[in-house]
Amino acid sequence: MSDPFFQPVSGMELPRFAGVPTFMRLPHVSKDHAKYGDVDVGLIGVPWDSGTTNRPGPRHGPRQLRDASTMIRAQHAVNGVRPFEALNCADLGDVGPNPADIEDSMARITAFYGDVLSSGIKPLTAGGDHLTSLPILRAVAKDGPVGMIHFDSHTDLFHSYFGGQMYTHGTPFRRAVEEGLLDPKRVVQIGLRGSMYDEEDRDFAAAEGIRLILIEEFFARGVEDVMAEAREIAGEGATYISYDIDFVDPTFAPGTGTPEVGGPNSFQALQVCRELAGVNIVGADMVEVSPPFDSSGNTAFLGVSIMFEILCVMAMQSAA
Amino acid sequence: MSDPFFQPVSGMELPRFAGVPTFMRLPHVSKDHAKYGDVDVGLIGVPWDSGTTNRPGPRHGPRQLRDASTMIRAQHAVNGVRPFEALNCADLGDVGPNPADIEDSMARITAFYGDVLSSGIKPLTAGGDHLTSLPILRAVAKDGPVGMIHFDSHTDLFHSYFGGQMYTHGTPFRRAVEEGLLDPKRVVQIGLRGSMYDEEDRDFAAAEGIRLILIEEFFARGVEDVMAEAREIAGEGATYISYDIDFVDPTFAPGTGTPEVGGPNSFQALQVCRELAGVNIVGADMVEVSPPFDSSGNTAFLGVSIMFEILCVMAMQSAA
Amino acid sequence: MSDPFFQPVSGMELPRFAGVPTFMRLPHVSKDHAKYGDVDVGLIGVPWDSGTTNRPGPRHGPRQLRDASTMIRAQHAVNGVRPFEALNCADLGDVGPNPADIEDSMARITAFYGDVLSSGIKPLTAGGDHLTSLPILRAVAKDGPVGMIHFDSHTDLFHSYFGGQMYTHGTPFRRAVEEGLLDPKRVVQIGLRGSMYDEEDRDFAAAEGIRLILIEEFFARGVEDVMAEAREIAGEGATYISYDIDFVDPTFAPGTGTPEVGGPNSFQALQVCRELAGVNIVGADMVEVSPPFDSSGNTAFLGVSIMFEILCVMAMQSAA
Amino acid sequence: MSDPFFQPVSGMELPRFAGVPTFMRLPHVSKDHAKYGDVDVGLIGVPWDSGTTNRPGPRHGPRQLRDASTMIRAQHAVNGVRPFEALNCADLGDVGPNPADIEDSMARITAFYGDVLSSGIKPLTAGGDHLTSLPILRAVAKDGPVGMIHFDSHTDLFHSYFGGQMYTHGTPFRRAVEEGLLDPKRVVQIGLRGSMYDEEDRDFAAAEGIRLILIEEFFARGVEDVMAEAREIAGEGATYISYDIDFVDPTFAPGTGTPEVGGPNSFQALQVCRELAGVNIVGADMVEVSPPFDSSGNTAFLGVSIMFEILCVMAMQSAA
Amino acid sequence: MSDPFFQPVSGMELPRFAGVPTFMRLPHVSKDHAKYGDVDVGLIGVPWDSGTTNRPGPRHGPRQLRDASTMIRAQHAVNGVRPFEALNCADLGDVGPNPADIEDSMARITAFYGDVLSSGIKPLTAGGDHLTSLPILRAVAKDGPVGMIHFDSHTDLFHSYFGGQMYTHGTPFRRAVEEGLLDPKRVVQIGLRGSMYDEEDRDFAAAEGIRLILIEEFFARGVEDVMAEAREIAGEGATYISYDIDFVDPTFAPGTGTPEVGGPNSFQALQVCRELAGVNIVGADMVEVSPPFDSSGNTAFLGVSIMFEILCVMAMQSAA
Amino acid sequence: MSDPFFQPVSGMELPRFAGVPTFMRLPHVSKDHAKYGDVDVGLIGVPWDSGTTNRPGPRHGPRQLRDASTMIRAQHAVNGVRPFEALNCADLGDVGPNPADIEDSMARITAFYGDVLSSGIKPLTAGGDHLTSLPILRAVAKDGPVGMIHFDSHTDLFHSYFGGQMYTHGTPFRRAVEEGLLDPKRVVQIGLRGSMYDEEDRDFAAAEGIRLILIEEFFARGVEDVMAEAREIAGEGATYISYDIDFVDPTFAPGTGTPEVGGPNSFQALQVCRELAGVNIVGADMVEVSPPFDSSGNTAFLGVSIMFEILCVMAMQSAA
Repeated sequence: MSDPFFQPVSGMELPRFAGVPTFMRLPHVSKDHAKYGDVDVGLIGVPWDSGTTNRPGPRHGPRQLRDASTMIRAQHAVNGVRPFEALNCADLGDVGPNPADIEDSMARITAFYGDVLSSGIKPLTAGGDHLTSLPILRAVAKDGPVGMIHFDSHTDLFHSYFGGQMYTHGTPFRRAVEEGLLDPKRVVQIGLRGSMYDEEDRDFAAAEGIRLILIEEFFARGVEDVMAEAREIAGEGATYISYDIDFVDPTFAPGTGTPEVGGPNSFQALQVCRELAGVNIVGADMVEVSPPFDSSGNTAFLGVSIMFEILCVMAMQSAA
Repeated sequence: MSDPFFQPVSGMELPRFAGVPTFMRLPHVSKDHAKYGDVDVGLIGVPWDSGTTNRPGPRHGPRQLRDASTMIRAQHAVNGVRPFEALNCADLGDVGPNPADIEDSMARITAFYGDVLSSGIKPLTAGGDHLTSLPILRAVAKDGPVGMIHFDSHTDLFHSYFGGQMYTHGTPFRRAVEEGLLDPKRVVQIGLRGSMYDEEDRDFAAAEGIRLILIEEFFARGVEDVMAEAREIAGEGATYISYDIDFVDPTFAPGTGTPEVGGPNSFQALQVCRELAGVNIVGADMVEVSPPFDSSGNTAFLGVSIMFEILCVMAMQSAA
Repeated sequence: MSDPFFQPVSGMELPRFAGVPTFMRLPHVSKDHAKYGDVDVGLIGVPWDSGTTNRPGPRHGPRQLRDASTMIRAQHAVNGVRPFEALNCADLGDVGPNPADIEDSMARITAFYGDVLSSGIKPLTAGGDHLTSLPILRAVAKDGPVGMIHFDSHTDLFHSYFGGQMYTHGTPFRRAVEEGLLDPKRVVQIGLRGSMYDEEDRDFAAAEGIRLILIEEFFARGVEDVMAEAREIAGEGATYISYDIDFVDPTFAPGTGTPEVGGPNSFQALQVCRELAGVNIVGADMVEVSPPFDSSGNTAFLGVSIMFEILCVMAMQSAA
Repeated sequence: MSDPFFQPVSGMELPRFAGVPTFMRLPHVSKDHAKYGDVDVGLIGVPWDSGTTNRPGPRHGPRQLRDASTMIRAQHAVNGVRPFEALNCADLGDVGPNPADIEDSMARITAFYGDVLSSGIKPLTAGGDHLTSLPILRAVAKDGPVGMIHFDSHTDLFHSYFGGQMYTHGTPFRRAVEEGLLDPKRVVQIGLRGSMYDEEDRDFAAAEGIRLILIEEFFARGVEDVMAEAREIAGEGATYISYDIDFVDPTFAPGTGTPEVGGPNSFQALQVCRELAGVNIVGADMVEVSPPFDSSGNTAFLGVSIMFEILCVMAMQSAA
Repeated sequence: MSDPFFQPVSGMELPRFAGVPTFMRLPHVSKDHAKYGDVDVGLIGVPWDSGTTNRPGPRHGPRQLRDASTMIRAQHAVNGVRPFEALNCADLGDVGPNPADIEDSMARITAFYGDVLSSGIKPLTAGGDHLTSLPILRAVAKDGPVGMIHFDSHTDLFHSYFGGQMYTHGTPFRRAVEEGLLDPKRVVQIGLRGSMYDEEDRDFAAAEGIRLILIEEFFARGVEDVMAEAREIAGEGATYISYDIDFVDPTFAPGTGTPEVGGPNSFQALQVCRELAGVNIVGADMVEVSPPFDSSGNTAFLGVSIMFEILCVMAMQSAA
Repeated sequence: MSDPFFQPVSGMELPRFAGVPTFMRLPHVSKDHAKYGDVDVGLIGVPWDSGTTNRPGPRHGPRQLRDASTMIRAQHAVNGVRPFEALNCADLGDVGPNPADIEDSMARITAFYGDVLSSGIKPLTAGGDHLTSLPILRAVAKDGPVGMIHFDSHTDLFHSYFGGQMYTHGTPFRRAVEEGLLDPKRVVQIGLRGSMYDEEDRDFAAAEGIRLILIEEFFARGVEDVMAEAREIAGEGATYISYDIDFVDPTFAPGTGTPEVGGPNSFQALQVCRELAGVNIVGADMVEVSPPFDSSGNTAFLGVSIMFEILCVMAMQSAA
């Protein structure tokens, strides 16, 4: 079992609505904390939405995700994994962004994750808009490109917006491929839908070898079959998981900036995570949770439930 | 046909938004009313949430359920049952709880239901949190243990909370088994999911012979197959139906205190009720509807739609 | 390609939250505009809810639908149709109703649509409650009855309400059949559910030959099979599409006045539209979107997504 | 003291959130009830908004006002009046309107109030939009014109809307003067504000001798001085009190259809009622409470607090 | 200046929406922390609402108050006080209540505050419902009765509820007087209003010498005059400040369980705190903030603004 | 009277909820429109919030302000001004920002306003966050510094944020003074309050001669006295009016990103505008309206009511 210091307090002892809310009621371990070096998985907030082209709000995501995460208990209901016993998990706090400067913010994020990774901590991120993934990948892939399993209703592969703007939440993975952070042959995007500007993004994907799975194919084949292919595409190499909450139908996850109707339900949203077992995960993110559009709090609760699923897969991976 | 006194007023006559809201626009028949003895099924509110361990609110459930219930019409769309003609139904009002004393409130509830049952009225309850079921069962099962078909995302089979607290909405059915109110071999719990504290509740169920059906099994087998097994478990004996609204996915039923994502949709929520036909129902409840978290009112409307489904099954039962 | 004048402004150029909101960011072309005669499909608002028997609000529908429609882009994700290039589309503005006089309002609507149709413009309407369809049909079917594919949870085939009131949103298609606007043998109603007053509407349908498809049949057979039958019923003749947003489950579309739980999800809500390909559409409406009950805005966004699906079918039809 | 039958149940006995919600927890006494003839003041709901020219919703007012009214206790905090002991008060239920026919609805309302008045019951109404006051006045003033103290941000003295529509919530008092129901010399309107169409209504008031007090004058002079003048205008004759909730600033009362910013606060909203002491009140109404725009419920609670203030003045009047 | 350890992080450095939310962005110092002994003022959460007789929710208060408190900056705008430099302030975390046992919870609270006080820390509490004040006073007044300045719309001086229930949020100060924790001659209650059950509480106050200031007197005399009297009543002895958020008008503070309309505005809510300068404050609380009824978050932000005002007075007191 | 083309459509003709929503139902006149040269006052949207340091959302302001503005009628209630007859007013549409590039957006805004001003049109702006005022002032003051009357709870005079960020909504007027756009001796800021970082901004104001009026002084002296001083400070020279909605108490205007409690009410919010009569207004803005935090829509309606007040003053100015 892991260090008792890292055990979250139980809702049987302290009611779930009590206490300073950290991710999953884990200890808050900042970089200068004595236990920093003992952390296996670090939960990190990136409260940032400067890349948002439509409705803003994900800057408030980490705090609401922390709040909702006090509902998470100790054990997975199906596979029995108890991740907080298998791994030393901690809340590493938030990266402090510069809300008025995109490049400065990206530099801060990459630096923060550089520290985390060089300390041997695997990052599980709560965003932030999807541009957040780019500076994280700059740290994660600093020694070579990684694969990616990407859940989203959009490809985020556009060249630029608004007359040449290269860094928005619609462009991170185009940049990541161009910068050599992603191996496009080991990238799969799942859940794509919604009306389109044009085919620029799909053309880029086709040219680079990125596999696109539209929602129609997803529903027709089912979760297991699609995810088997996803695991095959990712292969045995280092793989990043990027989960945009707008992958899920906006009825189940209304708190997001660019919703697209006709997506998966909440059960499927969890199932796809379970099917990540066996993937060589080197980091993961949950992005685009936007509290101002989430009046019920359901989006945040679904977001942390997904984070818990991924954490359990990481725990199985470490046990393997 | 039943007594005309017991016919709800039609929305064709008085618009659905008009009038003092009783359950399903039925007459309000309190204990001292001349028609009390003629009632076949009594709809009863238990505005109480002292057993809640997380987010409170079900004390406001009965009033909101009455409000939403003015949308219910006279006939079932599929099986054609017209329950208000088959049975004398009435709104018996609310049990008056003591919000600051759990044991006093339970005594009040048991006494109220004792009167109801001794008058030959079958109770259909609108809670209230799930602890409500315990004092009701004390009245329903006073002559011997009953079976139970239980829809929920949680087992509610824990021993105690917060250092020895025996009566919360997480413990009622443990108590009911211990008190001999339920025959555990005739109990089935359907829809279980969500992260777990530990396996204490599952171990208790296994030891006592309670059948647990996780949501994964529910989705894999389908409603008809699962419910056939449920009917077999309940058998021909007296059976109580307990329906926690958190059985349903929180997107469809956000107004509840301890939601768990990844549950059934609203069609499945109705289907399971229809499959109760043939069960020997001696009472039923709809619990954990929490209006402060139900800004759209959808949860309450789903709750009363479920109550109407159960009422139609009761009407078929009485006709059989 | 269509006239460049009719191209909506792209979200890549002007962010989606900017600009005076017209339907799908199309030009606003009122009757006295020089380009009026060039319009192929006119998007029209009918802000009216005087026929509502329960919760009002659809009078606010067109404005909220315009707002949400700024999220619609240029191309369909699956069939690749680019409707704004295939057809000259425009926002024709709203019909000005008289909120305090049903008959006057109906006369105004019929007159407005008479102008539209006599200019060779095909109308795609954003209501408004369902009574809106009646005065539109009076214009659309002025030369003879049309067929109809009707998505709804209610038949809207009642004779009258509240002691003889002939014009409410529960009666439009009874009137339309009586007035010879609809050919009942070429009418199909899909998605029916919810508790019923009695069987008056079903008896009328049976007597006239209107095909009713309950939600149970819809789920059992699946979208493709049901829609194949619907296309067969409509045949090759002129057909009107009427889409009541309460066809969709109220969790996906809470913003409506008479919700019925247990309906299709948002993916199915789009799928049924795609299966309209091949139908001879002479007009279509999206009705009963009620913003006061749509706090998240999801209902309106789903509504305009459905309008976009229908528009794409119209574009394919014109290309054929 | 009044008949014990008419005492509302105390929140010390039954918690305020429990029970079937009648106005102020009074007994529900419909016309055929044995105690009907003993009622002194009847609280009546008129769930109707067909006169609304802008945002609808007051049809839902009576039910929400009943719900909020369970917060009202037995005694006035300042003057010590205990109205339920001084007078036999009862909830007489709702007038059943015809939502799709204005004239039919007005006839129903006038008939209902005719019965009430002929039984010697003084009506205290919960609307409904402001057109509601017209059919009530037809009953109240059937033997001759009455005076009126009218709180509102609008005069409601327009001739017609939308090309000749004579009956809307902007015209009731023009009609009432024309029909001889109001003695304009004994009418005062208090709180007027907001941008104006033109001066048609003010010209009518000037011609007829109706006294208009703009909000600027109200604030400059203060409640006591303004109300002294109001009492003088009303004089000793029979006087009707009409209270449009939009008199109050929309921050304090957001749940209304045509808000005007810059109005009185909630304390002033109550004060003006207290200053009605001495007026010969023959009936009163609280109108334009629109629950769909009152997400906090504050508007309804303020509405019933105002109704309680007026009821206390009625009790003082009966004691005098 | 105080220990740099105790300085909150500035919003100029880390944006206000970032970071794990502690009270006013202060360090989280639990009992076993090395700096615990250096704390001057401890901000403490008591997430508890078991004493609530009407709408529950204050158990969620501390977390929402922490969230809102990230908006508080370093210096008071008028008096220039910089409290975090004058005093070592810290977030001491939450008392863990037993939501299902009132007496157990009170014992836990009294024990927690006993520790705090014996370490020389002055407590500033975020409740919780108003019953919270009783177990705090048991710790604060363990060596003798204290005075109290109490802002509220209710006296909370009732004997019991629901047939003998002695501990609810309507009874704490009756108990405190009976237990000798308060010196009634040094107690003043300000802002009283709302309809009353009866005069039991006022009779008790009169008999004991507690000064009651109704809202009418408050408005008539003004803040300065009323508060001068309050300071005189409290005198030079140890005085507790208890601030029920329902003192403020519910429009300004909707998030509370038992609102009473017609109260002070937000400026007056702050002013009364500033007028506490010179009082010998030994502890203070902000209670009855109920997030489920505070959709805008304004109530919580007002609550923490009041806490900041009181903290500045404490800082002036320590400097004197 | 002005050109009939510029008359807004009356709510007596077309209900207020109908039609494509332009500002105050004025014609939409873009730069290439034939009537552009005839416009006297141009209402312009700037949907932009990249300067926001805390909660985002003002990018959605212009659209919501347009929606709310359909409630504005033709005439001022007190001074009788009919601005749309006195001046040719039009909706000039929105400036298209680049949400991901502050400097590019500022350049676009300055260019847009340069065109407007060089066409002799006086701009009345709906923002956008407060940084919006800077690029507008660059156009307005291109021939020399102007005076400013500024309503706000913050000075917006800080040097920089987040380690050197010069352009945020907390810095525009520091920049404007530095750039010679404002004559600090002719600048007054009214309504300042809230906790402070430090005194940097006040020191800058003191050094430059900017007059700061704290909310305490505002309430103590009253609107008329304060505004007389403001007019004197502005003098006869060209003066810009900048109105941050957070000047108003957040209860009256919750929809904003950095609320400060304890501010003016809605009547005072209007009064200060009326007292601008006589000022030589060369442009005005209403900024920081943030729809995601304005669930009731009250903030937007207050915002446009203020815009209407300012427009009436402009009309009086043109008539003088």
